[in-house]
Amino acid sequence: MATFQRHLFICTNERDCDDERGCCAAKGSAEVAKALKVAAYERGLKRIVRVNKAGCLDQCAQGVTCVVYPEAVWYGGVTPEDVDEIVESHLVGGVPVARLVVPNEELTGRAPDEG
Amino acid sequence: MATFQRHLFICTNERDCDDERGCCAAKGSAEVAKALKVAAYERGLKRIVRVNKAGCLDQCAQGVTCVVYPEAVWYGGVTPEDVDEIVESHLVGGVPVARLVVPNEELTGRAPDEG
Repeated sequence: MATFQRHLFICTNERDCDDERGCCAAKGSAEVAKALKVAAYERGLKRIVRVNKAGCLDQCAQGVTCVVYPEAVWYGGVTPEDVDEIVESHLVGGVPVARLVVPNEELTGRAPDEG
Repeated sequence: MATFQRHLFICTNERDCDDERGCCAAKGSAEVAKALKVAAYERGLKRIVRVNKAGCLDQCAQGVTCVVYPEAVWYGGVTPEDVDEIVESHLVGGVPVARLVVPNEELTGRAPDEG
């Protein structure tokens, strides 16, 4: 056995409705998560690629958000209609879906020396 | 901004009590998750390292389980007492805590050609 070839985490966090950033749950993350799990399974990716729900990934304004490791590729604004392309192009073929990728400069992470 | 330098996911899945593998929730994952979040915050890692709860990471027999990306280092049998060492050695220093690492051959993932 081995580590998973790829590991996708999808934000299913639910925020207060009055938070101006919105939240992935309100934007339909449950449907996207289910579609991703089903599509990955049907494509024969069981235990090759793992799809997991996760708590808040801190990119609320970009929701529905998911991240694929070990590449650390972030997707934003994901809908159920995008799922087949993510699975086929990226999870199977290793080619990220460029039109959905959140650029690094729009992510909330920082390097240790950025203060 | 940037992607997170490291991203830790901890399994907080709850299984039926009669499942012989057990589950991370029954083994104390909530306490470990909280301790990891607090320790990372107190160490000044906000937005450098992200700590997230996740659904079932599929390593039930190894629980409490967590994985750190992009390194894809898996930890098993994690307790609240291990948290400071994980944060200081790995999340800050980049050196995995060897005594807690689950070897690749004990993980449930597989390569595409393993059938």
